[in-house]
Amino acid sequence: MTGRDGGADIAPIGNSPVIILVRPQLADNIGACARAMANGGLFHLRLVAPRDGWPQEKAWRNSSGADRILDTTTVFMTVADAVADLHRVLATCPRPRHIIKPVLTARGAAIELRAIAERNLRAGVLFGPERAGLDNDDMAQADLLVRYPLNPVFMSLNLAQAVMVLAYEWWTAADATPPRELMTNETRVATKGELENFLVHLVDQLDACGFLQNLPKRPGMVRNIRHFFQRGEVTAQELRTLHGIVTELAIGRRQMGRLEDADYSADRATAIRR
Amino acid sequence: MTGRDGGADIAPIGNSPVIILVRPQLADNIGACARAMANGGLFHLRLVAPRDGWPQEKAWRNSSGADRILDTTTVFMTVADAVADLHRVLATCPRPRHIIKPVLTARGAAIELRAIAERNLRAGVLFGPERAGLDNDDMAQADLLVRYPLNPVFMSLNLAQAVMVLAYEWWTAADATPPRELMTNETRVATKGELENFLVHLVDQLDACGFLQNLPKRPGMVRNIRHFFQRGEVTAQELRTLHGIVTELAIGRRQMGRLEDADYSADRATAIRR
Repeated sequence: MTGRDGGADIAPIGNSPVIILVRPQLADNIGACARAMANGGLFHLRLVAPRDGWPQEKAWRNSSGADRILDTTTVFMTVADAVADLHRVLATCPRPRHIIKPVLTARGAAIELRAIAERNLRAGVLFGPERAGLDNDDMAQADLLVRYPLNPVFMSLNLAQAVMVLAYEWWTAADATPPRELMTNETRVATKGELENFLVHLVDQLDACGFLQNLPKRPGMVRNIRHFFQRGEVTAQELRTLHGIVTELAIGRRQMGRLEDADYSADRATAIRR
Repeated sequence: MTGRDGGADIAPIGNSPVIILVRPQLADNIGACARAMANGGLFHLRLVAPRDGWPQEKAWRNSSGADRILDTTTVFMTVADAVADLHRVLATCPRPRHIIKPVLTARGAAIELRAIAERNLRAGVLFGPERAGLDNDDMAQADLLVRYPLNPVFMSLNLAQAVMVLAYEWWTAADATPPRELMTNETRVATKGELENFLVHLVDQLDACGFLQNLPKRPGMVRNIRHFFQRGEVTAQELRTLHGIVTELAIGRRQMGRLEDADYSADRATAIRR
């Protein structure tokens, strides 16, 4: 979405889980994983037997500034070594077979990982190599499996995307942003009194220009106009603009005379009534 | 996580939203976006003024088989053209400023998009170019903004990652997988009667070998053993294996005599009591 961030501010926060890439093949992907981890507030990266060795400059080039994560990445020969100091291990696994183990969704995993962190235990999450995924021995090292709910007819999930989904859920599990809110920045939502004040102004001008001259239809038309402006969650700033628009249009109309746009006025009435 | 999928089975499902990449720069990223879309069950891709033109072979090479999405991708000169036939437009925007508009989280956006689809309306989601993101005129074309809850000190989200998070939430919004379930495959969770049967077998053998000879401590030790086996959600298959293990160890012990591992037995008692 945006360009390179400075890496200066990404420091480990609390007891976040360790991401363990098992036999990763491409340094590009390792860099992309570090970037995804930084996006979601994960900071501990371990590699088990990376195919092309470590460090690899390409990883840093593809991490968009998540340097600190790569600088502190540690390398292990086996999964057993990589998880030896952890209390709880999760293994991502798109198609587990013949395994008796609890399976979590990505969201369930995030809740579990938050609970583990709150108990001051250390958790790790295993991600398999790009093509084959984790093998059966890798998964036997884990307490829990994680399977993302995704399109079952297109399971080919890029390694960094897999890390991204988990990092996103990890962050979201502790995030209190409401699913929807009106962003008003330097202004604020108008009060009902301010909105009423504008509607009175508008209806006065519409009466003056003849837009509401059909008296039997007038109450319904006024209600429809009212419904439209209520729906938009108008702000105080926008009301000032709308007052200005009504005033200026009314002045223009007075200067030009009223004949030429009588038809246009009728069109608008039709549109508002629909 | 795994290798290339066949693209044959990914066909448009229902009224899924259109992903609109605005002025995308890299064909690699367009391919990665298509792959992420397929993962999450999104199938309609539009491009607005792609920097390097369209089609680009690199996109297909980087889509891991999401060919159908790329084959049917359409190109527009402007955002206005790209959204003209849509009823509702969302714009992803990591740092909106000076804009009065409802802001949704990724999860809130998925709920909104599902609701729009259920009303048989067509929605689109705008994603900005890799470096700059959407500009102010792009965002003025949208009804709603989408801002993902992610680490505010590392906002550099790769374009395909941004699409992945939305596609994942779109899929998850209609997914009923429980956050945690025990996968038992061809076996099943043991009944309490089956578990009791095993525990009686085990305790009998532990009595026989002297492991439970400290009579004042015996009830607590038995309870602790019971707690451990209850916790594991043991399956019928695993109980058969455990019966076999106890039987075989008991035979071995009888053959070897009991003296040499008396200390080991005490160790285990300590461990279980802790």
